[in-house]
Amino acid sequence: MNIRPLHDRIVIKRIEEEQKTAGGIVIPDSAAEKPQRGEVVAVGNGKPLDNGEVRKPEVKVGDTVMFGKFSGTEIKVDGEEVVVMREDDVLAVLG
Amino acid sequence: MNIRPLHDRIVIKRIEEEQKTAGGIVIPDSAAEKPQRGEVVAVGNGKPLDNGEVRKPEVKVGDTVMFGKFSGTEIKVDGEEVVVMREDDVLAVLG
Amino acid sequence: MNIRPLHDRIVIKRIEEEQKTAGGIVIPDSAAEKPQRGEVVAVGNGKPLDNGEVRKPEVKVGDTVMFGKFSGTEIKVDGEEVVVMREDDVLAVLG
Amino acid sequence: MNIRPLHDRIVIKRIEEEQKTAGGIVIPDSAAEKPQRGEVVAVGNGKPLDNGEVRKPEVKVGDTVMFGKFSGTEIKVDGEEVVVMREDDVLAVLG
Amino acid sequence: MNIRPLHDRIVIKRIEEEQKTAGGIVIPDSAAEKPQRGEVVAVGNGKPLDNGEVRKPEVKVGDTVMFGKFSGTEIKVDGEEVVVMREDDVLAVLG
Amino acid sequence: MNIRPLHDRIVIKRIEEEQKTAGGIVIPDSAAEKPQRGEVVAVGNGKPLDNGEVRKPEVKVGDTVMFGKFSGTEIKVDGEEVVVMREDDVLAVLG
Amino acid sequence: MNIRPLHDRIVIKRIEEEQKTAGGIVIPDSAAEKPQRGEVVAVGNGKPLDNGEVRKPEVKVGDTVMFGKFSGTEIKVDGEEVVVMREDDVLAVLG
Repeated sequence: MNIRPLHDRIVIKRIEEEQKTAGGIVIPDSAAEKPQRGEVVAVGNGKPLDNGEVRKPEVKVGDTVMFGKFSGTEIKVDGEEVVVMREDDVLAVLG
Repeated sequence: MNIRPLHDRIVIKRIEEEQKTAGGIVIPDSAAEKPQRGEVVAVGNGKPLDNGEVRKPEVKVGDTVMFGKFSGTEIKVDGEEVVVMREDDVLAVLG
Repeated sequence: MNIRPLHDRIVIKRIEEEQKTAGGIVIPDSAAEKPQRGEVVAVGNGKPLDNGEVRKPEVKVGDTVMFGKFSGTEIKVDGEEVVVMREDDVLAVLG
Repeated sequence: MNIRPLHDRIVIKRIEEEQKTAGGIVIPDSAAEKPQRGEVVAVGNGKPLDNGEVRKPEVKVGDTVMFGKFSGTEIKVDGEEVVVMREDDVLAVLG
Repeated sequence: MNIRPLHDRIVIKRIEEEQKTAGGIVIPDSAAEKPQRGEVVAVGNGKPLDNGEVRKPEVKVGDTVMFGKFSGTEIKVDGEEVVVMREDDVLAVLG
Repeated sequence: MNIRPLHDRIVIKRIEEEQKTAGGIVIPDSAAEKPQRGEVVAVGNGKPLDNGEVRKPEVKVGDTVMFGKFSGTEIKVDGEEVVVMREDDVLAVLG
Repeated sequence: MNIRPLHDRIVIKRIEEEQKTAGGIVIPDSAAEKPQRGEVVAVGNGKPLDNGEVRKPEVKVGDTVMFGKFSGTEIKVDGEEVVVMREDDVLAVLG
């Protein structure tokens, strides 16, 4: 995927989790809440600071991250749905 | 197009995409949502910082960029519709 | 017009454009939206920065500029209607 | 008038303008909108900056200035109505 | 009164003014608006700045000051009603 | 009480005042407004500044302070009710 | 638990307290308010400052902390419920 997020943004591909109700019934994608977990597929150059420097991003391509339910903007690139968000919206890096 | 956006603003020409419904019916422009993809046609001198310096823009004329649905202001220049927005409203550069 | 806008403000004289409906009917001034284009007739000394310096304005008297619909404050000077706004409300310089 | 506005505030005495309707009828003070023009009667020491310095005011006593409709606070000093506002609320200096 | 306001706060004792209606009737305290004039009875050490320094207050004990209608917090100290506010809420020093 | 408030926070134990109506009737605790006066029982290391330094708190353990009605968060520690607030929410130090 | 919170965030495992009504009846988990006390299980690298440096966190893994009712975001990691929040949302460290 040929995309470079701007400044301190990153691009994440959501990791689908098979969601089951307590009774074991698989919840179809459309009804389930969107997963808040995904893989980082692109990172920007970093956040431009007021003193003219740029702060490198802490996350890197390939990291599995968790993020808030309402974070980021959904976009389609080469037919694939991804989420673009500020690095600071990432809650944590897993693994 | 002879226009110089001020400070950290850039001017984008939207790239129309033929939008089809799932059944293949072409959605007329008026009904379709405005594309969030476009080509950069002009960039400003950059963002004036509090320390008196100016931060050069990261995007350049000719870049294809993606931006948020509600970003920028529509204006008409030489009869052409373009969008003027802050560089920081650009989500990512494609290609 | 003997007026000096304060700090980073500028004074703009709107450029009236004859507005026609699609059918060619001229829309009287009162009904038409106020033009978002105008000529800069005065600029201030510039924006005072937190470090005590002053940042010179980028636009100059005589520039034709575009600005947002709701930008600035209408005032009357020597019987003439002009708009006073922060330089940063200017979207772009034309020509 | 023995008053020293604090920090970056200034004190303005409104200049009453005889307001007439299009038909030439003089509008009594109470009905007319308060004039947004006035004479500077006192200025403070200036705006204290985060680096500990103080930025001198740009306007001075005796200047005729224009300001926004809702700017400042009305107070009575020695029986006279004046307006106290931040210097930055002044739109422009006339003459 | 043994009180030290914190940081950039000051303590003010309101100066009661006998308020009369146009017809000369004295308005009882409870009905009249609280006076926006008072004497400074205590000042703090000053505003802590981001660079670690402290900015000394401009007003001093004994000054008569004017302030906005909704400024500050009413408190009772040794049975006396006073107002505690940020120094920056003071509009001007009188006399 | 073994508690260390974080950064620029402090812990205060409210000082109960016997509240009487004008007619001398003692108001039971539940009905009375919570006292806005209390003793400082713990202070944090101080406020971390943007330049990496830490600003020491001005109040110290044992001070009697006054604070706003809605300041701070009530918590229970070792069965005792205390209030945790930012130092800057303290209006003044008494005595 | 293999999780690294980003920047100035920390991960907390809530400490369940058996909650009883005044009459000694144990309140089942679901009805009781979530405890505002927990153990720190992971801390991030610290808060990136505007001058490019990073401020180390004050709390450390193993600390017992108190936090506000509405602080942080609930997430599930390896089947366990934890809360991710900014370090600055922690009110105090106990013990």
